[in-house]
Amino acid sequence: MLEKKLGKQTVIFKQPPTIAATASIVGPKEGKGPLAPYFDQILDNELWGERSWEMAESKMVREVLSKTALNASKAVSRIDYILAGDLLNQCIAASFGVRESGIPMFGVFGACSTMGETMSLGAMLIDGGFASNVVCLTSSHFCSAERQFRFPLELGAQRPPTAQWTVTGAGGVLLSSEGTGPFVKKITTGKIVDMGIKDQNNMGAAMAPAAADTIFAHFEDTGLPQDYYDMIVTGDLGRIGREIADDLLSSNGIRIGSILNDCGVMIFDMKQDAHSGGSGCGCSATVFAGFLYDRLKKGKLNKILFVPTGALLSPTSVQQGESIPCIAHAVAIENG
Amino acid sequence: MLEKKLGKQTVIFKQPPTIAATASIVGPKEGKGPLAPYFDQILDNELWGERSWEMAESKMVREVLSKTALNASKAVSRIDYILAGDLLNQCIAASFGVRESGIPMFGVFGACSTMGETMSLGAMLIDGGFASNVVCLTSSHFCSAERQFRFPLELGAQRPPTAQWTVTGAGGVLLSSEGTGPFVKKITTGKIVDMGIKDQNNMGAAMAPAAADTIFAHFEDTGLPQDYYDMIVTGDLGRIGREIADDLLSSNGIRIGSILNDCGVMIFDMKQDAHSGGSGCGCSATVFAGFLYDRLKKGKLNKILFVPTGALLSPTSVQQGESIPCIAHAVAIENG
Repeated sequence: MLEKKLGKQTVIFKQPPTIAATASIVGPKEGKGPLAPYFDQILDNELWGERSWEMAESKMVREVLSKTALNASKAVSRIDYILAGDLLNQCIAASFGVRESGIPMFGVFGACSTMGETMSLGAMLIDGGFASNVVCLTSSHFCSAERQFRFPLELGAQRPPTAQWTVTGAGGVLLSSEGTGPFVKKITTGKIVDMGIKDQNNMGAAMAPAAADTIFAHFEDTGLPQDYYDMIVTGDLGRIGREIADDLLSSNGIRIGSILNDCGVMIFDMKQDAHSGGSGCGCSATVFAGFLYDRLKKGKLNKILFVPTGALLSPTSVQQGESIPCIAHAVAIENG
Repeated sequence: MLEKKLGKQTVIFKQPPTIAATASIVGPKEGKGPLAPYFDQILDNELWGERSWEMAESKMVREVLSKTALNASKAVSRIDYILAGDLLNQCIAASFGVRESGIPMFGVFGACSTMGETMSLGAMLIDGGFASNVVCLTSSHFCSAERQFRFPLELGAQRPPTAQWTVTGAGGVLLSSEGTGPFVKKITTGKIVDMGIKDQNNMGAAMAPAAADTIFAHFEDTGLPQDYYDMIVTGDLGRIGREIADDLLSSNGIRIGSILNDCGVMIFDMKQDAHSGGSGCGCSATVFAGFLYDRLKKGKLNKILFVPTGALLSPTSVQQGESIPCIAHAVAIENG
């Protein structure tokens, strides 16, 4: 067993990276939700002066990169690596968003788990001694996601109550080898879990077993007591998925219902007509970069397990009758 | 400056990971090319008994994972992480291919640079002390790529001479903390380079500046003499792109024309009607896992710089009139 490994899936950092700064930009609907005061910028409209929704999404990535560096008072040139990805085909929001940065870049794809994946890899690059500063970036956009994954918006297709609403937003997290916290203490990297769910309008149900699997592995690997964290916050299971994850964990002896929350539940109010809740790479990214980071910095939360969840489907895989493989990556963040 | 960093883009490993084994599976056309004797398996037909090309591509990934572990005489359960990605929307070849493995997985997207990206990240995870064994996997499939990026095959669209032929193939590389080499000694991570090329039928021209940029950075960061390597082998620039890269490097004082080769040039014979050469994530992956690894193991090559190149476009970005952002990741591999 390696000195930095706990169990099969968990890494414990010897020199835990600091989260030096975050930044978030969200769309108008997110800006009317309960977390509005915590975002750096709220857009008036989804196009943000661009010619297409995809270009607007890229612009969010570009701007959130600048804001993240600015919030950390670091020159962009001091960033060693960018780790970035998104939901669009061939991850164009990320690639076009960082195109002018001149910074070495690793593109990742973890669907809505992307922020967890980039923070996991980024923390390893820093603790491993390969980087001093890494920026983790991801985004999603309701309009670009709808037309790519579902129906043209102009069709006005009706959505079932299990459906989730793709968040328009981009989040950035700057991990650094120097700083006073909050620190990334551990990561638990997910394996793919596929319980045979085929309904792409019920991704919470598809992703919940992956979230439960990673949270279970985290407690198994670390031996931590179940009440160790102030909050365990999944990526974007939504109301239905959150309940399923809680049930699955309870039936495996992990009773964390009182501290289990979900970014997809938190970002929209019930009366905002987002059905089961928010989703998309931008959901957990902006909730973390906006709300959760603020709570950590102010000491309102001191220990959280952040567990972004991803559904690794494509329209082609759905059309070919495949079920939905899912994954969740846990990042343990603590003050001090 | 970090102890493991050279210049802005290059990492030098303190305990260089060994490439413990590789495996490759290719399609029938690749199996008729000049590198045929070096591949582990050559398929009779592109569907390989599956219902769709996408599922056949996933099967290649699944099988190449098993073969890679087998060739290293390691149980799949001893693999700490899989790093995998591909060209399909939402990287479904990779996700569905490793779905049953039960191994923690990081999905990546670097288009045809994916093998370079996964080997770079994998080597850092091992040298950083987070993993003992990492498998890097990628694939492409002519039929799934054509219908996603270009035209239905049934249309029989004519291809210009600058076009490349997407390789049907999957490659696996097992990096390990223990072994006798060949070793990953250094990596130079690419930044995005976009010189404004918009012709998706001339990706060699689009990618050549990115390849040249990374090779230039490698020599700049390391201070190595230009004749240090036995071969510098780019990913899939094809004949036209290789020539442009050579020109760009020469005009910047790097004269390596005699040792500069390209996986896209090597994999097909001129008479195979592949125009400018091979492309796709599977191109550099199978040429490395098949041919180059064999040459390294047998001491015919002792020092190579492997530089997979990726064009980070999507059909949507092309339709919206965008140019093609490109990236190249260099991996320096040496015996002893």
